[in-house]
Amino acid sequence: MAAPVTFINIIDVAPETQQEVIDLLNEGSERVMVGRPGFVSATILASLDRTRVVNVARWESADDVTATQADPAAAEFARRTAEIASPHPGLYAVAGRHLAADSGAGSDR
Amino acid sequence: MAAPVTFINIIDVAPETQQEVIDLLNEGSERVMVGRPGFVSATILASLDRTRVVNVARWESADDVTATQADPAAAEFARRTAEIASPHPGLYAVAGRHLAADSGAGSDR
Repeated sequence: MAAPVTFINIIDVAPETQQEVIDLLNEGSERVMVGRPGFVSATILASLDRTRVVNVARWESADDVTATQADPAAAEFARRTAEIASPHPGLYAVAGRHLAADSGAGSDR
Repeated sequence: MAAPVTFINIIDVAPETQQEVIDLLNEGSERVMVGRPGFVSATILASLDRTRVVNVARWESADDVTATQADPAAAEFARRTAEIASPHPGLYAVAGRHLAADSGAGSDR
């Protein structure tokens, strides 16, 4: 069985462009990603200083990410993001997971 | 009620130092973070190209993060990380969340 991977896109943005990048990522996630084979979840995060947007997406395998990047609809959203911001995409493996000492087990934290 | 925040530390590393940074983050999370007020969870992610480690930590409020950064034990782990790598810490707000179209609701995905 293929190993799950996390795709993280660290996107440097100008403060006045941050919301536009967020909108683009949310639109691309809903229109393209949620229906792609192997897609599990995506969380879009906006830095409070407005200089970054980070997309953390979980996938069932690296092959699923590669296949998605070759999808013209996904490539189009990647192209539009790169036009207005500086994306740094990469694949990651989970190397540790820690929950608060007083937390219940198994909840979505 | 205070708004939840996500603390993300994007850490540039040399490939030969990646595992040492991961070990440091896992040790700091277990020894310090899991017992701090307001800490919810942390996920340590290792880039497959070995040039980055990303720590994504959920907290109940920005004040909890600020108080933790002032904790000498936490500051010591931050200092040790900065000695061997280039950390870029910041506070983020969740700006979108997407699940696979065929996923069940409410699971930890």
